[in-house]
Amino acid sequence: MKLLEDKIRSEGKVLPGSVLKVSAFLNHQLDPDLIMELGKEFARIFAGDSPDKILTIESSGIAVALAAGAALHIPVLFAKKHRTSNVFGEAYSSIVHSYTHGCDYTVIVEKEYLHGGERVLIVDDFIANGKAVEGLLEIIAQAGAEAIGAGIAVEKGFQDGGARLRSKGLRVESLAIIESMDENGIVFCE
Amino acid sequence: MKLLEDKIRSEGKVLPGSVLKVSAFLNHQLDPDLIMELGKEFARIFAGDSPDKILTIESSGIAVALAAGAALHIPVLFAKKHRTSNVFGEAYSSIVHSYTHGCDYTVIVEKEYLHGGERVLIVDDFIANGKAVEGLLEIIAQAGAEAIGAGIAVEKGFQDGGARLRSKGLRVESLAIIESMDENGIVFCE
Repeated sequence: MKLLEDKIRSEGKVLPGSVLKVSAFLNHQLDPDLIMELGKEFARIFAGDSPDKILTIESSGIAVALAAGAALHIPVLFAKKHRTSNVFGEAYSSIVHSYTHGCDYTVIVEKEYLHGGERVLIVDDFIANGKAVEGLLEIIAQAGAEAIGAGIAVEKGFQDGGARLRSKGLRVESLAIIESMDENGIVFCE
Repeated sequence: MKLLEDKIRSEGKVLPGSVLKVSAFLNHQLDPDLIMELGKEFARIFAGDSPDKILTIESSGIAVALAAGAALHIPVLFAKKHRTSNVFGEAYSSIVHSYTHGCDYTVIVEKEYLHGGERVLIVDDFIANGKAVEGLLEIIAQAGAEAIGAGIAVEKGFQDGGARLRSKGLRVESLAIIESMDENGIVFCE
């Protein structure tokens, strides 16, 4: 998606350790006009698969997921990273390894918001190793729901998450796929 | 705002300890159509004050803040609750006490995204004791920016945060103000 690639080129920063900092428009600070357009693009791509619900993970997935939900007019559910005192009753859960933070964390979804047979579209801001998406797939499986695909804003194509999930049969659609990046610039997959 | 009050009456749950659970539509699960309407209402209320930027706090403020930013076409900045490895350089920070979780946490905003003289609208999903808004006001003050007001989806009017902030001169506009709630129902302020 040219709009997103242009934004990454102009405002993204490549930091040591294969970190692409997009805090100016995609997380920390959000560009609402851009994000609403990303949501419309996810809707265009996945509307034909008739999703019932969007599933994302807090915090940085919430904005793009809300935009997609607004375009598709379906509920957006975000998995929470910690069990809070506001979570009562039973929950689905899975453990996700974060390479960014070097730790495992638990994500949970309350059972009353995800049901067997629902067609679920995963939406997230980034995919690198794919561990977050795998955690969400585990939760969808626990609920007996069906994952119809994953819409991702930015894919680090030089890491294996997207390719591995596609090889397992999941439809993964990324709006910008980075082939390589370094201090000289960012190259997107054609 | 009748739309929000009706939704709270029909889908909100009053739990022990003055907890209003709105996880069905405002946090955990989001109703995008409702949330985009809340954003338009915040825009209607505050557009005349010409905000340059919206400031909220992760995670549950992000959705309503994005909706307001989309309606006003201005950037949305969300304060982060933990210093992550993606935060480089200097940051503004303040300590917020959470009565819900019974602990203090630090919220941070990277300095490059908030500047002296900017007119900042705070947006959040809830106000009860007002500690989160006070933390954001502290960050705005550190930046030399100006808080033009706070747009809140749901105010617990029986707790003192909203009243205390208004008495200090902050414009606090809440779309639904709960006067009282118990197992028999929810009463909104007229």
